[in-house]
Amino acid sequence: MKIKVAIAGYGNLGKGVECAIAQNDDMELFGIFTRRSPDSVKPVFESSKVYHIDNVLDYKDDIDVLIICGGSATDLPVQTPELAKSFNVIDSFDTHAKIPEHFANVDASAKQSGKIAMISVGWDPGMFSLNRLYADAILPDGKDYTFWGKGVSQGHSDAVRRIEGVLDARQYTIPKEDALSKVRNGSNPELSTREKHLRECFVVASDDADKEKIENEIKTMPNYFADYDTVVHFISAQEMQRDHSGIPHGGFVIRSGKTGADGENTHFIEYSLKLDSNPEFTASVLVCYARAAYRMNKEGISGCKTVFDVAPSYLSVKSGDELRAHWL
Amino acid sequence: MKIKVAIAGYGNLGKGVECAIAQNDDMELFGIFTRRSPDSVKPVFESSKVYHIDNVLDYKDDIDVLIICGGSATDLPVQTPELAKSFNVIDSFDTHAKIPEHFANVDASAKQSGKIAMISVGWDPGMFSLNRLYADAILPDGKDYTFWGKGVSQGHSDAVRRIEGVLDARQYTIPKEDALSKVRNGSNPELSTREKHLRECFVVASDDADKEKIENEIKTMPNYFADYDTVVHFISAQEMQRDHSGIPHGGFVIRSGKTGADGENTHFIEYSLKLDSNPEFTASVLVCYARAAYRMNKEGISGCKTVFDVAPSYLSVKSGDELRAHWL
Repeated sequence: MKIKVAIAGYGNLGKGVECAIAQNDDMELFGIFTRRSPDSVKPVFESSKVYHIDNVLDYKDDIDVLIICGGSATDLPVQTPELAKSFNVIDSFDTHAKIPEHFANVDASAKQSGKIAMISVGWDPGMFSLNRLYADAILPDGKDYTFWGKGVSQGHSDAVRRIEGVLDARQYTIPKEDALSKVRNGSNPELSTREKHLRECFVVASDDADKEKIENEIKTMPNYFADYDTVVHFISAQEMQRDHSGIPHGGFVIRSGKTGADGENTHFIEYSLKLDSNPEFTASVLVCYARAAYRMNKEGISGCKTVFDVAPSYLSVKSGDELRAHWL
Repeated sequence: MKIKVAIAGYGNLGKGVECAIAQNDDMELFGIFTRRSPDSVKPVFESSKVYHIDNVLDYKDDIDVLIICGGSATDLPVQTPELAKSFNVIDSFDTHAKIPEHFANVDASAKQSGKIAMISVGWDPGMFSLNRLYADAILPDGKDYTFWGKGVSQGHSDAVRRIEGVLDARQYTIPKEDALSKVRNGSNPELSTREKHLRECFVVASDDADKEKIENEIKTMPNYFADYDTVVHFISAQEMQRDHSGIPHGGFVIRSGKTGADGENTHFIEYSLKLDSNPEFTASVLVCYARAAYRMNKEGISGCKTVFDVAPSYLSVKSGDELRAHWL
């Protein structure tokens, strides 16, 4: 019997989940739940059913795991605790500072319902967090570095779009090669914000816009750009469409650490991602954690969990015997 | 109260474990158990106690976890099942083909004693296995590649040393850059043994040795070298001592996979290690899994486990609250 997975929220992430479920033979899509009128939503696959989110409780007993694909700012803080009262749920909550609060709210709901709610699943938080934890546990006398990119930052792109005269914008976060090299050489550098990442903006301006003023406004924008070296390119709407319609991302987690009687040996652990589509990769992580949530809940485990709490074997479709024989 | 860890077997790996325990504040070394006369063993730290392995059962109630540092060929198949009858144990059993058999033997002992026995802990098997599993679970429509090196292969070095006229030898396994590039470019190549790795040998020959004959014997040695491109350098004993006394190793696990409605997006997950000391890094992995074994057994879990069965949070000295607040 296949694991019945449903999607709540149907943007880029929800579409990615729809595609990822189709790649996993032990799962099937129960349906997509949306706040929009279901008739107005065109799923990736014709066979995918679309329901209104208001009716989700009608399918309480038909859905094994619900993957919540809303935003971290306003959707997930409300939706995840609410839906965990009735479903095993997964979300990709990524406001790092508010994770403890979100955890507490979701844990209370999930403990009461006896369901599992996995939060902050994706690549950062998610796979990057896991790699920081593993590397820190192995090499306690060390230092870790996270670099993001090259990739599109949605928040920074939005900030540029809000500037007067800007019609469209795309912002790439780019790790600086020089900083990466220093870390990989084991010099354990202290790196400022400016030294770690470059911000590159592609901007479509209106015909009558003052480009110099726009560029200055971007470069001096507090929190978003002021602490970085920022490069601004003005391009046409056609160039934006042709060259910047993808949503790539990625990054590096590197830890260097010392061992030996006197710290005489140095080791490097590096984990990196290079992603054509940030939402589709995040969706793929969500889907394998949905498998884990289903299995762990079957074993009687409930409450809020993160990637730190999930033994890797729960993620794989393969049996323990098969994993030990061929994957260890 | 600190976790009391003991070491059984005191070669390079045992020494590495002794050093690693000293880096972890929540642990203390109970002692080193050896087959040699305890008086003849000089530990890394003067304060480390040395006992004869025959007396290990006398300390059954004093040791929380025993890390078994014997060899996979003859030691571990006997020692791990035997010691799991009385202790929580960890080993680094690395004969991939015999893992299912070793698992079954160890599991029977550990289930009976109510202890935890973790086998095949290290980096391959170990961290590389974990990364193959995570990446396969996330990107089911993909292909993974493991490259080893640059590093010293003990087995291959030994094989060269057995050749007549060879006084000393060191063999490095080196991943071929061209193969790595093809994999990182996403061309999903089929790579032969010869295409993936180069074998480089440094040999000290006796004065009267026929070097051409030695080189030929190395290059045509079945299983070890015949299927590879092999480079042989003859060097002096002084050069061997000066340039080749370390035991570095490392490698790469790379998975590329496709997502999207039509597999239109490609992603790369890469995990790499660059290690000054293979045994010390392996020891560091063993020690953090010793923490996990202790904690899991405290929760009533018993039987044989591998890295696949251990939730990452068990490895970290940090609390769940701390991990969620600062490491997720």
